[in-house]
Amino acid sequence: MNGHDTVRPVRWTDEGLYLLDQRRLPAAEDEVLCRDSGDVARAIAGMVVRGAPAIGIAAAYGAVLAAREHLPGDPAGWEGALDALAAARPTAVNLAWALRRMRSVSLGREPQQRLLDEAHAIAREDLAANRRMGALGAALIQEPAGVLTHCNTGSLATGGFGTALGVIRQAWAEGRLERVYADETRPWLQGARLTAWELLQDNIPVTLLADAAAPLLMRQGRVQWVIVGADRVTANGDVANKIGTYGLALAARHLGVKFMVVAPSSTVDMGTRDGEAIPIEHREATELLSLGGQRVAAAGADGWNPVFDVTPAHLVDVFVTERGVVHAPDAARMAALFGRDTVDTRLGSGG
Amino acid sequence: MNGHDTVRPVRWTDEGLYLLDQRRLPAAEDEVLCRDSGDVARAIAGMVVRGAPAIGIAAAYGAVLAAREHLPGDPAGWEGALDALAAARPTAVNLAWALRRMRSVSLGREPQQRLLDEAHAIAREDLAANRRMGALGAALIQEPAGVLTHCNTGSLATGGFGTALGVIRQAWAEGRLERVYADETRPWLQGARLTAWELLQDNIPVTLLADAAAPLLMRQGRVQWVIVGADRVTANGDVANKIGTYGLALAARHLGVKFMVVAPSSTVDMGTRDGEAIPIEHREATELLSLGGQRVAAAGADGWNPVFDVTPAHLVDVFVTERGVVHAPDAARMAALFGRDTVDTRLGSGG
Repeated sequence: MNGHDTVRPVRWTDEGLYLLDQRRLPAAEDEVLCRDSGDVARAIAGMVVRGAPAIGIAAAYGAVLAAREHLPGDPAGWEGALDALAAARPTAVNLAWALRRMRSVSLGREPQQRLLDEAHAIAREDLAANRRMGALGAALIQEPAGVLTHCNTGSLATGGFGTALGVIRQAWAEGRLERVYADETRPWLQGARLTAWELLQDNIPVTLLADAAAPLLMRQGRVQWVIVGADRVTANGDVANKIGTYGLALAARHLGVKFMVVAPSSTVDMGTRDGEAIPIEHREATELLSLGGQRVAAAGADGWNPVFDVTPAHLVDVFVTERGVVHAPDAARMAALFGRDTVDTRLGSGG
Repeated sequence: MNGHDTVRPVRWTDEGLYLLDQRRLPAAEDEVLCRDSGDVARAIAGMVVRGAPAIGIAAAYGAVLAAREHLPGDPAGWEGALDALAAARPTAVNLAWALRRMRSVSLGREPQQRLLDEAHAIAREDLAANRRMGALGAALIQEPAGVLTHCNTGSLATGGFGTALGVIRQAWAEGRLERVYADETRPWLQGARLTAWELLQDNIPVTLLADAAAPLLMRQGRVQWVIVGADRVTANGDVANKIGTYGLALAARHLGVKFMVVAPSSTVDMGTRDGEAIPIEHREATELLSLGGQRVAAAGADGWNPVFDVTPAHLVDVFVTERGVVHAPDAARMAALFGRDTVDTRLGSGG
């Protein structure tokens, strides 16, 4: 399996937190060193690190750096630093989840070590969850299949291995896949820049397409599955994910292509009833109007740049998590798997 | 009206055919001079000029240039040059249509003048058709509306005024529109580069979005109409148009947004039964994997780059042509408006 999973976006050292700079991939493989929690918050907001689980992990380490600055003497300062981390991006729930876990650590006499242990645990558990989801998701794929994915949900977006891309990685290793297609994913080009780079690092061939070409790809019968990650899954099974996911789900349902969502339980937000209540992040129009630092759009044109959309649960064929698989998710089936404990964690966290 | 229609992509002079270089807009407003028909064929294949009607007009003038080279002495050479023009791009039917018209000219003693008169007529009639479609299409829009368009179907894509963008231009002038949204239209960015530029030249504000954001735009109720052009409309009303049109039509139908196709009768191909038979052009993966000459995708990634897709007639609410409006197009309604004469022209053309 290691031959198919070699990349890690987040690396802790005593010096601080090293983040692989995802703004610059694939042209350059540089790391950014975050020495304090403000660096981490800026790196999350600026998308040095992105992907819901990876953001959560980075924030957890950010809380460790904040502890170096503020604990044990200044707990209010530490809480404030965590608030700043939590505010770095609004849509993915893993960020808030990871910080709730960090806040709930019983600090004892060695708060920094306790918090570091917890951050390591979050990262380790994420990787384990991804491997478990990979196995569960791959088992659903009837070979030989073509799959389409969107954005980047791989090792770069997580503690390693990936969510949707973990399923694809696993299914590839098991010989279930004929072909992997990846949407380029405008405006940030996560597909073209990150997913393609990551898959090629791991010797999995990939074919890129324009986002708008996906319905034709499905109509031509080239893919049997669309497999995506999630930034937040609500109590009824609605899925916030990278802009474009909703259109993929509509086309997939219309054309009889199966639609799989893969995300760890840290992405599940049982405290939010449905997708209507999810805050959708809008980013600078510049991301859309420029490319590689060059303005491409006509001067004077305005841009609308929502970076997530919500796919209603009824368009999801299966939701794969490390706790198990939810077919045709709805409120009852979500509650059966996640109901009580996730809500309790939230209510009990004081976050 | 002139204040809202100032751009022309094709300009004839005695020197030859000047084409506004659409590869370079909006960064530079340069013209390319085509001195012979080979120059025109290369300019069409290379997308110096693009847009189904504009391609037809450029090819008609290309036939005039070919006449300078070959007529009256070498009619076979002239026919060969027209064949080369016809082969420059496969999907849009206006190219073949314009060349059939040029071939059907009775050349008499002044073949070059006769052909030039015909090319001028094709350009003039296209502009007139666009103004007529603008009026017919705009009348369908209940104000105040938001509209979304895809690719570029404006003055740049036609003899002037535009097809879908002509309807938008007219509706804007009539005060029917609250807001115009344009997909950026990857990979060639016709929306970001051309539609935005053209609308802003004519003082019509425009908001760009990533192609994949369109379903969210519709879901949020920001647009009541999707208005697109066509590169070929078959006898049953199926529509070949820029890649991404099909997904827009699926989302529009699902979300109760009206879907309007605007194209002149030169785009109608009654000799082809349905969209399955339309040749879909695939262009170099480089268009997708690079941006502004810079590679953006990971080295080693492959690309799939179909540049058109087919929207089935049942997803089209209304097809607007200069001959009139076809609601809910199907074979019978298409035949009622286009049946006999279009097919007869084709059969009689010897093309």
